Amino acid sequence: MSTHTDEHAHSHGYISDKTKYLNRMKRIEGQARGISKMVDDEKYCIDILTQISALKSALEAVAVGLLDDHLKHCVLDAAQAGGAEAEEKIKEASDAIARLVRS
Amino acid sequence: MSTHTDEHAHSHGYISDKTKYLNRMKRIEGQARGISKMVDDEKYCIDILTQISALKSALEAVAVGLLDDHLKHCVLDAAQAGGAEAEEKIKEASDAIARLVRS
Amino acid sequence: MSTHTDEHAHSHGYISDKTKYLNRMKRIEGQARGISKMVDDEKYCIDILTQISALKSALEAVAVGLLDDHLKHCVLDAAQAGGAEAEEKIKEASDAIARLVRS
Amino acid sequence: MSTHTDEHAHSHGYISDKTKYLNRMKRIEGQARGISKMVDDEKYCIDILTQISALKSALEAVAVGLLDDHLKHCVLDAAQAGGAEAEEKIKEASDAIARLVRS
Repeated sequence: MSTHTDEHAHSHGYISDKTKYLNRMKRIEGQARGISKMVDDEKYCIDILTQISALKSALEAVAVGLLDDHLKHCVLDAAQAGGAEAEEKIKEASDAIARLVRS
Repeated sequence: MSTHTDEHAHSHGYISDKTKYLNRMKRIEGQARGISKMVDDEKYCIDILTQISALKSALEAVAVGLLDDHLKHCVLDAAQAGGAEAEEKIKEASDAIARLVRS
Repeated sequence: MSTHTDEHAHSHGYISDKTKYLNRMKRIEGQARGISKMVDDEKYCIDILTQISALKSALEAVAVGLLDDHLKHCVLDAAQAGGAEAEEKIKEASDAIARLVRS
Repeated sequence: MSTHTDEHAHSHGYISDKTKYLNRMKRIEGQARGISKMVDDEKYCIDILTQISALKSALEAVAVGLLDDHLKHCVLDAAQAGGAEAEEKIKEASDAIARLVRS
């Protein structure tokens, strides 16, 4: 989870460190391509499964980081503005957490 | 996820509807006892696994509900008070989400 | 995961070490009761979530152990007997794995 | 999970339907690229999270399918050959299941 907050990113987006997420997603794309190649090359099933578990963990790390940024920026801003929007943002975040935990 | 908010519960706690959580946890305790009994009775392994998956889902539902209440009460209050506490509460919530997603 | 196989356990069940599972399930029942009490005592939400993640991990460990035993005993026996039953046992195991991974 | 078993696929690999897996993995690669683009375009965080949950589910479906094929082919063959290799294959499969469930 990022503890670093890039104020510039915040000014035009909710993400504390866009480059970090882009790099992570590039790595995840590479992992997905690697798994496709392992299937195409008929690599040993268990080795493919190991790579799938690694990719799943990498994805979860991105999701948890995005949620953290979302809470820190969108939800915090809405909470400070107050009113119905704060509750709505929290409901949205809770629903996203539920989908992530149950998927 | 609870959409109902019991203001009285909020006054003495973070939980919107304590009775609801106690009832769910009682059911979860019953499910755990049921699984113990299935093991003791040497029930068919696959049937035990089905009950374990059901218990896991029930637990996740409680966790997601508690997180929702936590965001709605603690985090929202801290956000409205502002300052370092708001950030700390969000960090805490994000860490809890990470543990839940990865466990 | 158990690497130890108790042949006696096999003779009257599919589980390599019934006592081990009963002890783990007793611990899980205790964890569930502990979480109920935390809710009743209105403990801090984040601390309850930490205990729920621990309980979820403990449950998953039991499930993975049971699956291992199931593969070692039921599935292996059926495979050695051959025929349609072997395929059916594997389908059953795969469905249980799917439920567990997705729950 | 595949219920269809392509005997030809078995002759040159462990996977019942290689084309099916390649297609699924292509789709997963596309989903990963789509998520990168959403991050680059600074799409709304919650929408990115929804896509991540969908990708995670798609990955899990591939993993569960591969495990099913692995049990049906490698493990079944080893079980019928008997001896130490059968146990080793099952241990390997159980470890892969554990990594998947806990990741």
